[in-house]
Amino acid sequence: MNIQCPPPVETDERVRLGHGSGGELSQQLLRNHVFPHFNNPWIAQGRDSSVLQPNHQPMVFTTDSYVVTPLFFPGGDIGKLAVYGTVNDLAMSGARPLYLSCSLILEEGLPLSTLSRVMASMGHAAAEAGVALVTGDTKVVERGKGDGIYINTSGIGVLDHPVPIGPEQIRPGDHILLSGDIGRHGMTIMASREGLEFESPLQSDCALLYGPIEKLLAAGIHVHCLRDLTRGGLATALVELAETSGCQMVVREDAIPVCPPVQGACEILGLDPLYVANEGRFIAVIPEQQSALAQSILSGCAVSAACRTIGAVANGDRAQVILENALGAERLLDRLPGEQLPRIC
Amino acid sequence: MNIQCPPPVETDERVRLGHGSGGELSQQLLRNHVFPHFNNPWIAQGRDSSVLQPNHQPMVFTTDSYVVTPLFFPGGDIGKLAVYGTVNDLAMSGARPLYLSCSLILEEGLPLSTLSRVMASMGHAAAEAGVALVTGDTKVVERGKGDGIYINTSGIGVLDHPVPIGPEQIRPGDHILLSGDIGRHGMTIMASREGLEFESPLQSDCALLYGPIEKLLAAGIHVHCLRDLTRGGLATALVELAETSGCQMVVREDAIPVCPPVQGACEILGLDPLYVANEGRFIAVIPEQQSALAQSILSGCAVSAACRTIGAVANGDRAQVILENALGAERLLDRLPGEQLPRIC
Repeated sequence: MNIQCPPPVETDERVRLGHGSGGELSQQLLRNHVFPHFNNPWIAQGRDSSVLQPNHQPMVFTTDSYVVTPLFFPGGDIGKLAVYGTVNDLAMSGARPLYLSCSLILEEGLPLSTLSRVMASMGHAAAEAGVALVTGDTKVVERGKGDGIYINTSGIGVLDHPVPIGPEQIRPGDHILLSGDIGRHGMTIMASREGLEFESPLQSDCALLYGPIEKLLAAGIHVHCLRDLTRGGLATALVELAETSGCQMVVREDAIPVCPPVQGACEILGLDPLYVANEGRFIAVIPEQQSALAQSILSGCAVSAACRTIGAVANGDRAQVILENALGAERLLDRLPGEQLPRIC
Repeated sequence: MNIQCPPPVETDERVRLGHGSGGELSQQLLRNHVFPHFNNPWIAQGRDSSVLQPNHQPMVFTTDSYVVTPLFFPGGDIGKLAVYGTVNDLAMSGARPLYLSCSLILEEGLPLSTLSRVMASMGHAAAEAGVALVTGDTKVVERGKGDGIYINTSGIGVLDHPVPIGPEQIRPGDHILLSGDIGRHGMTIMASREGLEFESPLQSDCALLYGPIEKLLAAGIHVHCLRDLTRGGLATALVELAETSGCQMVVREDAIPVCPPVQGACEILGLDPLYVANEGRFIAVIPEQQSALAQSILSGCAVSAACRTIGAVANGDRAQVILENALGAERLLDRLPGEQLPRIC
């Protein structure tokens, strides 16, 4: 076999927390140090999951490691997140989730009761999502070489409605729908980490997303693209889609819902909710003529009841995201340069 | 949906290094704290990988996290191990490896040149194994919450020769073939960790195993069971197979090859080579009448050139492994109780 891989890059640089942000630094890390060594069509697509076809019906494969701290937070925990997050990545390819793997890296000294609590939560979440956890692995590292528990889940799903979904399907005129208000997960994690308290209690938005996606597909909506808003938040997701699709997107700032506790916490802490992480929100890019139907379908699902059309794909030939404020002023959205809040998932 | 999962177990116990050994403690951890929360037929089989059939042709799914220290050792590194190990788990189900995922947990401060070196090694290994790395994820944790780099790979393979392979296929009279000498990987890791030097340099045995397996299957050998010898070594693998199959196995100690440097190092350090980890050795349980053919096929492959028949499945009704020494004395093999050497893979 002719094996030609590029040599490793010589550099004195080191991994920084920002390399895990999902933003620009993350992209650089992958582009410079990871992708060059795995030259295949799936990697080239740069997506969160890959569509495979080992047999007849196409299937989707995805993976995520979860290192969230604290392990338990209002509205969820690392176990629930590890199921929901991976299942949602499948859903964003339009795939019905079927199987999960679970690989644990435990730190010496972790109370077994904590492990049991996390596993129980994973079990509930898997049952709720209708996926079978079919294979796993457990490693233990010495005290001080981990942080309680890290979980990797990989997921396999099948495409019952094999319509092509992805950034390359995005067309000028498409509407951009947002499934609900943003920033709850990130601010919940930050609040529980910093011991902040708010008047109205804040909970993570973490939720299963295949339900509404399945309804869109079953109704014959030609979903062009889906993206869940995790690390880097709404802004990073939009910028990535614009860059990958080569399209210009115009989004109205006042159409983007942010609940008062998130807005308040962001103001106090100097954060922009557009960049704050979510675990149960997504955007759907839908052909203009089906946008109203899609919005009414999403509004009928609890998890996307507050769905809004926040903008559209423009005719412009620059791959960028323009944010219009209520006064009509425009600014360009950037990727998150480094790390806003590490280890939120 | 009716979701009934058991409640988490209340206990004051904590995770110990031995819980990661692949031995008895590992089993307890899974039995008490993990499996009860994921009640499905795949988990019940307690295997390293699961056969799925989302479409027509059955496929196999497996996962492993790699936490080996040091990251680089004679004969390999964590990246090579992360490809070989997962691909070998597929091979042990008789599956041709097709796709891999790669999820990284990086510690803040890791030199990027180290990351590049590891990724380059993974790329080479994936090309060598003929698998496509199709999806991935990267997380970064703070300094002191990891150990340079942890890698999870999950793998998908297909069964070109869909003969049932597994402990439940083991029958009295079957021959037990061992693919080569044991203990090289574990002793190499220990030596590089402790700075030990030997007269003849010791290298990890880490190797790809699908080649010989494919040849066995293509030749029509009714392979009853396959098991790669990783954590816990040959002894733990045999005991697990005996317990899962309910069969008695009798193995001749003097038929088990151990190379002089491994033998010497084990004597100095007070270790039993039967329990030392390997990353390129396996046992095959083969019907008696096909055993000679299987052995000649395996002997023709470089990776299993030193293949030996080390014992057989007896008619006894006790699920145990009996080790006969050269003088005819017998002893029962146990699982590794705790941890012999942490983080060897």
